[in-house]
Amino acid sequence: MPLVTIRLANRDIPTTSAQKAALIAGTTRLMQEVLDKKPETVTVIIDEIDPDNWGVGGEQVTVVRQRSKGPTQA
Amino acid sequence: MPLVTIRLANRDIPTTSAQKAALIAGTTRLMQEVLDKKPETVTVIIDEIDPDNWGVGGEQVTVVRQRSKGPTQA
Amino acid sequence: MPLVTIRLANRDIPTTSAQKAALIAGTTRLMQEVLDKKPETVTVIIDEIDPDNWGVGGEQVTVVRQRSKGPTQA
Amino acid sequence: MPLVTIRLANRDIPTTSAQKAALIAGTTRLMQEVLDKKPETVTVIIDEIDPDNWGVGGEQVTVVRQRSKGPTQA
Amino acid sequence: MPLVTIRLANRDIPTTSAQKAALIAGTTRLMQEVLDKKPETVTVIIDEIDPDNWGVGGEQVTVVRQRSKGPTQA
Amino acid sequence: MPLVTIRLANRDIPTTSAQKAALIAGTTRLMQEVLDKKPETVTVIIDEIDPDNWGVGGEQVTVVRQRSKGPTQA
Repeated sequence: MPLVTIRLANRDIPTTSAQKAALIAGTTRLMQEVLDKKPETVTVIIDEIDPDNWGVGGEQVTVVRQRSKGPTQA
Repeated sequence: MPLVTIRLANRDIPTTSAQKAALIAGTTRLMQEVLDKKPETVTVIIDEIDPDNWGVGGEQVTVVRQRSKGPTQA
Repeated sequence: MPLVTIRLANRDIPTTSAQKAALIAGTTRLMQEVLDKKPETVTVIIDEIDPDNWGVGGEQVTVVRQRSKGPTQA
Repeated sequence: MPLVTIRLANRDIPTTSAQKAALIAGTTRLMQEVLDKKPETVTVIIDEIDPDNWGVGGEQVTVVRQRSKGPTQA
Repeated sequence: MPLVTIRLANRDIPTTSAQKAALIAGTTRLMQEVLDKKPETVTVIIDEIDPDNWGVGGEQVTVVRQRSKGPTQA
Repeated sequence: MPLVTIRLANRDIPTTSAQKAALIAGTTRLMQEVLDKKPETVTVIIDEIDPDNWGVGGEQVTVVRQRSKGPTQA
């Protein structure tokens, strides 16, 4: 019955369907190994969030990422 | 004050506005009947999720649905 | 596959197990009627919240409720 | 480590990036002032919700807003 | 920056602190392997839910589990 | 209609009711100032999480905090 929600801030290169499949498979396997849950009872939901809507350290992730790229690559 | 969140994996045919209205009305009525809550204090939020982002049994719902359609209807 | 989360501010008289059962049964039936979902695919989770931790109108529900009782009943 | 999620029903005029930045900065400052948290440990996520998917008083916000505009302005 | 929430229905034998540590370590490693995230940016929260408050198939998990034990083992 | 959820890892000294009131009042004021929302439409919920159930950098917060105290203060 475990329910796992994964929230991610979107990047320039979107998360691929293969990566989502790997997150779902890996999380389900973990529930099986650690808690002995049957895979068919595990639900995983991935929420992709606009980096404009995600804040860390009081700033939008969009802003944090731009600064970390530096002036030459911007 | 009850707050109800309904998360749904999208289907090929999108959930209609009338269905959403029925979910909101029905949930609110339930809170009134079971918990004696005033309708105006009930909040309902519907989150529609891409089936690529929803996993059951270790697989994406997209994959599960495709297989259940079978080779002839696919 | 619908996933429904119901968040409630606790009252002096706790929500009974029978009321929780009625919320779960009613929500599941609603998903079946409105969206044609199979009951066995519906998950419902009830979160009971301390009224000290729930705010409406900028105030704790504990405070709002105390005021609405008035000075004579307090 | 505080994690703050802000859910908003979209309006005709979308929430601007500057408003989102103000919500993130303000929430982070509040965690610092009230709980003495370091800003770099605070995460804020803003979820923008379609008003068709948000219900209050048993009705979609879309419907509530239309009625409050009245027949002349509609 | 990934944020993972794991919701579990409590069992008679509570989830141990070692199991929680394994869930947190395993989820964080998965984010690193699949999405190339730095471990220090991954947050994991485990919510333990009373089985009376968790419904599947229209029934409380408490009831489902009792029935699956059968009359002789009960 | 904004709905704000604040999740906090518990500390040795619990969050006081006065701090919770300040979080609720401050968040509500922020919604009013930035988004011009009426205070009575703002809901705030505070979730207090056991530090054993909160992971950062692949470890339980309980473990991280113990290490940061060092051997002499422990």
